[in-house]
Amino acid sequence: MFSEGCGKINKMTMTININTHIDEVLLNALKEDLGNGDVTTSSLIRIEDVSEAILIAKGDLVLAGVPFAERVFQLVDSSLKFITLKREGSGVRAGSVIARIKGKTRSLLIAERTALNILQRMSGIATLTCNYVKAVKGFKVKIADTRKTAPGLRFFDKYAVSAGGGHNHRYGLYDGVLIKDNHIAAVGGIDKAVRLARSGVHHLLKVEVEVGNISEVNEALKAGADSIMLDNMSSENMKKAVNVIRTHDPDVIIEASGNITLENIREIAGTGVDIISVGALTHSAHAADLSLEFKPA
Amino acid sequence: MFSEGCGKINKMTMTININTHIDEVLLNALKEDLGNGDVTTSSLIRIEDVSEAILIAKGDLVLAGVPFAERVFQLVDSSLKFITLKREGSGVRAGSVIARIKGKTRSLLIAERTALNILQRMSGIATLTCNYVKAVKGFKVKIADTRKTAPGLRFFDKYAVSAGGGHNHRYGLYDGVLIKDNHIAAVGGIDKAVRLARSGVHHLLKVEVEVGNISEVNEALKAGADSIMLDNMSSENMKKAVNVIRTHDPDVIIEASGNITLENIREIAGTGVDIISVGALTHSAHAADLSLEFKPA
Amino acid sequence: MFSEGCGKINKMTMTININTHIDEVLLNALKEDLGNGDVTTSSLIRIEDVSEAILIAKGDLVLAGVPFAERVFQLVDSSLKFITLKREGSGVRAGSVIARIKGKTRSLLIAERTALNILQRMSGIATLTCNYVKAVKGFKVKIADTRKTAPGLRFFDKYAVSAGGGHNHRYGLYDGVLIKDNHIAAVGGIDKAVRLARSGVHHLLKVEVEVGNISEVNEALKAGADSIMLDNMSSENMKKAVNVIRTHDPDVIIEASGNITLENIREIAGTGVDIISVGALTHSAHAADLSLEFKPA
Amino acid sequence: MFSEGCGKINKMTMTININTHIDEVLLNALKEDLGNGDVTTSSLIRIEDVSEAILIAKGDLVLAGVPFAERVFQLVDSSLKFITLKREGSGVRAGSVIARIKGKTRSLLIAERTALNILQRMSGIATLTCNYVKAVKGFKVKIADTRKTAPGLRFFDKYAVSAGGGHNHRYGLYDGVLIKDNHIAAVGGIDKAVRLARSGVHHLLKVEVEVGNISEVNEALKAGADSIMLDNMSSENMKKAVNVIRTHDPDVIIEASGNITLENIREIAGTGVDIISVGALTHSAHAADLSLEFKPA
Amino acid sequence: MFSEGCGKINKMTMTININTHIDEVLLNALKEDLGNGDVTTSSLIRIEDVSEAILIAKGDLVLAGVPFAERVFQLVDSSLKFITLKREGSGVRAGSVIARIKGKTRSLLIAERTALNILQRMSGIATLTCNYVKAVKGFKVKIADTRKTAPGLRFFDKYAVSAGGGHNHRYGLYDGVLIKDNHIAAVGGIDKAVRLARSGVHHLLKVEVEVGNISEVNEALKAGADSIMLDNMSSENMKKAVNVIRTHDPDVIIEASGNITLENIREIAGTGVDIISVGALTHSAHAADLSLEFKPA
Amino acid sequence: MFSEGCGKINKMTMTININTHIDEVLLNALKEDLGNGDVTTSSLIRIEDVSEAILIAKGDLVLAGVPFAERVFQLVDSSLKFITLKREGSGVRAGSVIARIKGKTRSLLIAERTALNILQRMSGIATLTCNYVKAVKGFKVKIADTRKTAPGLRFFDKYAVSAGGGHNHRYGLYDGVLIKDNHIAAVGGIDKAVRLARSGVHHLLKVEVEVGNISEVNEALKAGADSIMLDNMSSENMKKAVNVIRTHDPDVIIEASGNITLENIREIAGTGVDIISVGALTHSAHAADLSLEFKPA
Repeated sequence: MFSEGCGKINKMTMTININTHIDEVLLNALKEDLGNGDVTTSSLIRIEDVSEAILIAKGDLVLAGVPFAERVFQLVDSSLKFITLKREGSGVRAGSVIARIKGKTRSLLIAERTALNILQRMSGIATLTCNYVKAVKGFKVKIADTRKTAPGLRFFDKYAVSAGGGHNHRYGLYDGVLIKDNHIAAVGGIDKAVRLARSGVHHLLKVEVEVGNISEVNEALKAGADSIMLDNMSSENMKKAVNVIRTHDPDVIIEASGNITLENIREIAGTGVDIISVGALTHSAHAADLSLEFKPA
Repeated sequence: MFSEGCGKINKMTMTININTHIDEVLLNALKEDLGNGDVTTSSLIRIEDVSEAILIAKGDLVLAGVPFAERVFQLVDSSLKFITLKREGSGVRAGSVIARIKGKTRSLLIAERTALNILQRMSGIATLTCNYVKAVKGFKVKIADTRKTAPGLRFFDKYAVSAGGGHNHRYGLYDGVLIKDNHIAAVGGIDKAVRLARSGVHHLLKVEVEVGNISEVNEALKAGADSIMLDNMSSENMKKAVNVIRTHDPDVIIEASGNITLENIREIAGTGVDIISVGALTHSAHAADLSLEFKPA
Repeated sequence: MFSEGCGKINKMTMTININTHIDEVLLNALKEDLGNGDVTTSSLIRIEDVSEAILIAKGDLVLAGVPFAERVFQLVDSSLKFITLKREGSGVRAGSVIARIKGKTRSLLIAERTALNILQRMSGIATLTCNYVKAVKGFKVKIADTRKTAPGLRFFDKYAVSAGGGHNHRYGLYDGVLIKDNHIAAVGGIDKAVRLARSGVHHLLKVEVEVGNISEVNEALKAGADSIMLDNMSSENMKKAVNVIRTHDPDVIIEASGNITLENIREIAGTGVDIISVGALTHSAHAADLSLEFKPA
Repeated sequence: MFSEGCGKINKMTMTININTHIDEVLLNALKEDLGNGDVTTSSLIRIEDVSEAILIAKGDLVLAGVPFAERVFQLVDSSLKFITLKREGSGVRAGSVIARIKGKTRSLLIAERTALNILQRMSGIATLTCNYVKAVKGFKVKIADTRKTAPGLRFFDKYAVSAGGGHNHRYGLYDGVLIKDNHIAAVGGIDKAVRLARSGVHHLLKVEVEVGNISEVNEALKAGADSIMLDNMSSENMKKAVNVIRTHDPDVIIEASGNITLENIREIAGTGVDIISVGALTHSAHAADLSLEFKPA
Repeated sequence: MFSEGCGKINKMTMTININTHIDEVLLNALKEDLGNGDVTTSSLIRIEDVSEAILIAKGDLVLAGVPFAERVFQLVDSSLKFITLKREGSGVRAGSVIARIKGKTRSLLIAERTALNILQRMSGIATLTCNYVKAVKGFKVKIADTRKTAPGLRFFDKYAVSAGGGHNHRYGLYDGVLIKDNHIAAVGGIDKAVRLARSGVHHLLKVEVEVGNISEVNEALKAGADSIMLDNMSSENMKKAVNVIRTHDPDVIIEASGNITLENIREIAGTGVDIISVGALTHSAHAADLSLEFKPA
Repeated sequence: MFSEGCGKINKMTMTININTHIDEVLLNALKEDLGNGDVTTSSLIRIEDVSEAILIAKGDLVLAGVPFAERVFQLVDSSLKFITLKREGSGVRAGSVIARIKGKTRSLLIAERTALNILQRMSGIATLTCNYVKAVKGFKVKIADTRKTAPGLRFFDKYAVSAGGGHNHRYGLYDGVLIKDNHIAAVGGIDKAVRLARSGVHHLLKVEVEVGNISEVNEALKAGADSIMLDNMSSENMKKAVNVIRTHDPDVIIEASGNITLENIREIAGTGVDIISVGALTHSAHAADLSLEFKPA
């Protein structure tokens, strides 16, 4: 089932800024584990010893994070050889070998846990995302992530969603306008909120509004919202809302959100929305099962 | 059921180093969300506007991370008033108010998601840990965490385990010796490994060895291990191993590890081990459901 | 003329991330000036000496950056009293007192140059922006900045443009899509470029395309661009382009760019474009003339 | 006119500390532009695409900053090939090709703006400095910079002055004693100020005093100043001051300062001073006009 | 005498974390010396000039820190060739050449002082440690360091102790339990203190208690301490204490501490303790005499 | 003997940059000791427990570093009360109470070692410096430090020298020109070296040259050196050199350097030099004996 995966990542698209950010995160992870040194490894293993290890899947999973795992090994020891055997975003069967790593035994042992922690988290997210994507097969809807990511790991979490075939929503509070219930309450109405947003931000940002019922849908449409998020509505009401919106302006983008599960997502997809955003992708995925095995000397 | 919780944390025990570390993590989380500013909030809300919001549980949970959520609000705006109503580690029913926060509307909206992300993750871990702790009620065994934590969040993850009534294993590679299968393979035997560890580390560190069968248990005992980890053994074999070890030296600490679930943990506790370590506590907990609600103006 | 200013800033709208960014920039500026200490001041002035100084305009200017100048003084010595007498964005006549600062003489002398450097640059930008804004009085066009800012000072430069009554374009490469000639050349056509952008970015970002003639305007319209930048076109051609665009879709935003000067901007405004972006605002403004004067003891 | 330039820089003379400082500044500039990624470029350009671009002068200018522009490209992508065709400090005609850059199209597009921003600022400063240097041709006077540099960019600004043929004054408050009017007022007299400075700093620093009239010149000489700055004096008074100083001690270094322009500098040079310092070099230079042009594929 | 040295370091055992820490320390040292540049060297030496220099011992010493000195040269200029001729931890006679360094003259001169400062401190510590180790020749006791290291230089100081043949005690407050007199006073008794420590820390840490007399020794034994530190006791009392402890439990580790000198250490070793810890190793060692000599061109 | 001290520090003269530098150094020192927490203290002491402790001298010493020790306590816990009883630079008898500190027991125990380490090092340097200063009583010579300081601790080391009555030489390579033997060898002569330095650095820096014999003294004088360092010369030759220099130009500053000890310094002072620089002040001082004692509860 997993063998074809869901994602469409060809290669990582990291740029300078993201690269320095990634190294910072990975180094912090290494430092919290390593402190002033690996007392076990440095007592047991001679500096000159070399080993070969394989990274294997212990369960079926959608793969995400191998380039980051590789980077962890490189940060520990740039002389390690890391050969990747499986593509990011591909489905991988239990027992498959994902990568081979060769070099100083000490370096392999020191990097092991940090590399696995990142790979297990990311592949867990990709696998869960892929399950959601497959659940809406046949519909033209996109499965999107949210800002409910682990503190400091948003890039990694969103990358994993992408590897799992999901679509990335805005990255943060700065690259998209999303007017939520609390904003509306504070401002005193959808119409005023949309107008303030339109004039307050630069001309290349669209304005999305969160609504909870048909009457608010109508307000949002009248105010000229570019996108409408249907939050915690029944699928029946969603269907009505989609109808109202499409009739008014077919260019408005419709997003469904709130309490989405693998059980109810197909029904929601059936309402005709463009995007379904799912917080669980990044805040409640189970770690994928992966391990590093040393080849006997 | 949750009302009494499981944890025993009175107050946070943060020291200088951990404090600067905590602020660093929380600021990084704020920065990745906020970038060059919250375009929605700064367009909609006037600087002088003030609001009051409550932090509420939307499901039953064991609480962890409130001081960190409070710190997020303070880092955004030190003039916010944050009143904590529930104790760390306590069981909290759905609908309970956990804290009240008052101050600039902008600040509340900017801090909201980051504060919730950390609180949801930590309370999720505490809740799962508490479930494990309750599952072994009546046994003298400790439920321990592992190094399988989210990259960069080990302090938070381990704190949450503690709030959930779990016990913290070594923090990293530097403050405890744990000889694992890969070490033994590389060194060429348990006896040699234990001896090298004993002479290679300072005199205040104990030596633990991972074993997979009774014959290795005997090797470890002969080598003088201070602690033995029974990895992935059947509960029957564990019982035998415990017997062998207790007979040989009652001071040796026995840890069980590998594929522990809520279903099998009670049986494992019955084998008489001292500690059961569970990776899932930190790598596969579901986010607890919490939200921030603004009071109508 | 300057007395009413051009800007509409009520108060600074800085949030946590920007605040830490601001402190970082100001501290770096202080450090490069101060090195291991102010050898003159520490030799001449006793630690306990106190003074009062005034910040005065030596020429007519539009004010920008006083809160940052104040922050410089606070970073040097948090016990200094800084009283602001003029509003950000207001027009200030030569000779006007902008602020009074009281406290340790050493602290005043150490902070002086760094505070003035930032204030002179920012007020220079605000003053130039205000001149452009006044030059198009009567037209509904916005004067916008560009990404041609001093390295590391984008926030300060854009804030100053805003204080001068200008409008901020996208902040960087990450919060707005702008397809430029080099992109089009590399991709092989406007149509393909717009389609790729539309499907490649999240649904809350609009797509702007740079064009150089009417034929490209038509291509951009057909491709469904949300915004069109007329680059380096004659005002006659611009007028034609505006006509074509408005006829096709009145919602498309039109920006003029390239070789804009105080001499030609009114003519360009007359073409009916929505936005005129001017690189000179931030890369070629003259420093405003301001100084710090100590009151005789 | 510009073809020979003014500067005497052979090669950059950067050392470790300055190098790390330079990278820090350039990375900050890249980060503020790039945020979490270039959304346009990553949508439009495939990772494997390569291009060639040329850096060309669009106006006559004195070149400064090419090694830093090159470093920006390298920081984005170390595999880019950057071939420099023009020497730092040389005069360059409009239309001249300054460098050729080849490599990944994405990398070129991401680095473009940041590289140009630094190059345009630095060449603008060098060009202005060269104009001042040429204005005093025939006199033995040096054109010097001041501490009126853009916050955080002092190294770059002073390097550009040097490339334009100017001379660098003290770098900051820590590597030279300059007693200004405010110091004298606070201390209560030139004589006391000079004596305090002499005994308060180490024996390898000279003492310069700012004076405004002949009577102060005499005080400074009596106090034994090593250098005297004539601030905001008429050229007539300057001439008298120079006479007084040279008569008293020919080793005293004389600096002119305050309201220096291209119009009056030759007259000031005629007074016989050793150094003329000009704040405008770094705080009011216009950006030089440079651009990056992609070669058609 | 020194020719054979005392240490047993084969090669440095630095891991990622320690590497980044080391570079940070060395760069900080370079920066505090170099500031905005070496004004002497950059005026005198042409960029293209090359030289060869030798690092020589000016007195007998035990060598420590050469890899760090090499790293200083590399951080200044990665093109320098550094050839190490003497092994870490070896005894070196006055006049011996320790390393040859070739490359840019500027780089050699800039790195010289910082490299020497670290090498002189570390070799001073190694030499003093070796003297203590030799003073107890024939006894099975270990000479250990303490936490009395120079602020920020613990890794370097402890490495040097190891190079001198000493043994490293716990690294800091986090990787070993040591209950001191102040702890006992605050808690109210040895027994309670040991019990609290045992239950408060993870199971892989041993518990050591500081005692000052036989009665406290007995309390510590009864409380089940894993290790006992005899602090500031007479050698006669130490002998008694060792006797009491060995009789009670031969596995308890015994450490002597307090006012240890080269004069009294042999007597203390004679009491039969396992470890003698000496603060002077790291807080009062004299710098070893080393210098960098340029070969005539 | 020590009761009057030697230093002339009234109060610390730290400015912004130095303050952030100081905090950085102290935090690094705390972090290397504290890691992820003080396992002993957090197990034994309750959060709410408070104590009072005194900082006492265990030997006669000249005090230096109390403000930094105080800062360490504040960085750990800003609620601690620290009352200083002895003045920086004063002579303190064994048994004297230097400060009283009250507050959380945990905070006192965590800060103790780091505060003592810095205080012991700095007071050790001040004490040694004071001994040198007293050794030349009656002469008008200054005892100066060198750049032979502990890596990263130059500010602290030089501050301590000042507290001990010594004089601070240039801070680093950037704020003073000192032409040494290696420079001269590389350049090819004293005359050329002095001329290059004079024209290469800004006009507020003096030029000092190191010489080893009378012939070089004459070269240096002819070249117009502002200051001459007599390196490793016999006191007889020094006397001759002083004579030659004073005759030639009484304004030239004369420094003696190389193998200065408490035994020979008075003889060297007798040669009439202005400054004697002593590397041992900072690289070979013994730690002063100080301790923190808890008052019985």
